[in-house]
Amino acid sequence: MTIQFTKMQGAGNDYIYVNTINQPVTNPKELAIQWSTYHTGIGSDGLVLIGPSHIADFSMRIFNADGSEAKMCGNASRCIGKYLYDKKLTQKKQISLETLSGIKHLELHVKNGAVKEVTVDMGCPDILEESLNLSCPNGTFTGTFVSMGNPHFVTFVEDIKQANLPVTGPLLEHHPYFPDRANIEFVQFLSEGNARMRVWERGSGITQACGTGACASAVALIAHGRAQKGDKIQIQMDGGTLTIEWNPTDNHVYMTGNAVTVFEGSIKL
Amino acid sequence: MTIQFTKMQGAGNDYIYVNTINQPVTNPKELAIQWSTYHTGIGSDGLVLIGPSHIADFSMRIFNADGSEAKMCGNASRCIGKYLYDKKLTQKKQISLETLSGIKHLELHVKNGAVKEVTVDMGCPDILEESLNLSCPNGTFTGTFVSMGNPHFVTFVEDIKQANLPVTGPLLEHHPYFPDRANIEFVQFLSEGNARMRVWERGSGITQACGTGACASAVALIAHGRAQKGDKIQIQMDGGTLTIEWNPTDNHVYMTGNAVTVFEGSIKL
Repeated sequence: MTIQFTKMQGAGNDYIYVNTINQPVTNPKELAIQWSTYHTGIGSDGLVLIGPSHIADFSMRIFNADGSEAKMCGNASRCIGKYLYDKKLTQKKQISLETLSGIKHLELHVKNGAVKEVTVDMGCPDILEESLNLSCPNGTFTGTFVSMGNPHFVTFVEDIKQANLPVTGPLLEHHPYFPDRANIEFVQFLSEGNARMRVWERGSGITQACGTGACASAVALIAHGRAQKGDKIQIQMDGGTLTIEWNPTDNHVYMTGNAVTVFEGSIKL
Repeated sequence: MTIQFTKMQGAGNDYIYVNTINQPVTNPKELAIQWSTYHTGIGSDGLVLIGPSHIADFSMRIFNADGSEAKMCGNASRCIGKYLYDKKLTQKKQISLETLSGIKHLELHVKNGAVKEVTVDMGCPDILEESLNLSCPNGTFTGTFVSMGNPHFVTFVEDIKQANLPVTGPLLEHHPYFPDRANIEFVQFLSEGNARMRVWERGSGITQACGTGACASAVALIAHGRAQKGDKIQIQMDGGTLTIEWNPTDNHVYMTGNAVTVFEGSIKL
């Protein structure tokens, strides 16, 4: 049996996308591990299954490269929007998506008949601590503790090149203040509406980009008066740039970014 | 324009294979770089172009992930054998292949209508120094200096787990004895006809497998009386096992190993 898949990436976050409406997948954990492996598999950050839903337009399930199931991924949900529209599974430009962390809403930005960018409603942020000082063996770090459904500690730095992620990242991730650990963002303010961010992801280490981390960074910038609600804030990460707006009307954070089809493939089971 | 490709691997060495007989590729260096990139490309060790030949059955060109052109790769040539036979571009089980380092001969081992393994004639080895002592800042290493068309220094170790490749590999690669540098193989003799090998490749560092390195290792084992010409010697590498025979009749080294089709793909130019 052969499975058709599409390799897509958003901000450098790449997954294997399979439409399970016409192709049932019974062992996604095993396939995510096998297919995500470089050299002997397809190679990816994981496997995303697109399916039907009783409560939304479509459903998504995300399996990481280690087989564990993720609740939600902003970069993947943008790619799903492009997948559904470009492959004519929907004509809607506003799509609801059932995920393990609730229903997410997408808005597609279409150019010449294809989706170029997608905006994802990332929900209300929760500023747990506006200014938190954490001591580590290599120094004291001041930052903002923000929940975007998952915990983020956003610390501002003068020069992102001096941020020592491999050392400071794990020290802050495992700091006793965070019993559930935390994602750590290092943010350099560049100019109004522009910041450079690098991320140490909980459980993953340095990654190319982090959607919720970009949102948390924008929220922290606003909390510290470096930007305003309603601004379109460009968060420049290693894998690409996301535009984040904390909407003053509904208090939701909206993330806009690219979605790219890399190639189409078929693989034997 | 869309290009059809096949992702294949042999001993964990994975390339993107394109048939240029029906699909011309004008910018292989750029495509090798772009396509080999993980996350935003297909992800691979490089790009292999299969073409016609005036002097052999087919031709192969190999472009590394950095765009440089390689002369020859044993693992890739095995995959080409599988590609040609399984896709019915040939019905021959003995194929000649034009490469930048001359014409190579393949013998296909077919099971149930598909190629499972391929034997490649790797030519005559040249033992340049049977026992060479090289001093490095971290010790003195005794090994055999063998040319398989490219230079190899094969050093025997008691326990492969103790071999410190990241430190010793580059020290030996750049040893003043090797003005053109050398590939470094660390070989642990296991039993008659079985050895464990790890490789530090010239210019690449630690890799999963190295076809010429496996050949050089078998030649060194024979030179040191740990095996005989005509033996089928299993060289176990991180990415898989290759069977090497130094044929006593024609003095050629024959390498036999797997060839695996991972998936079929199509990508827009």
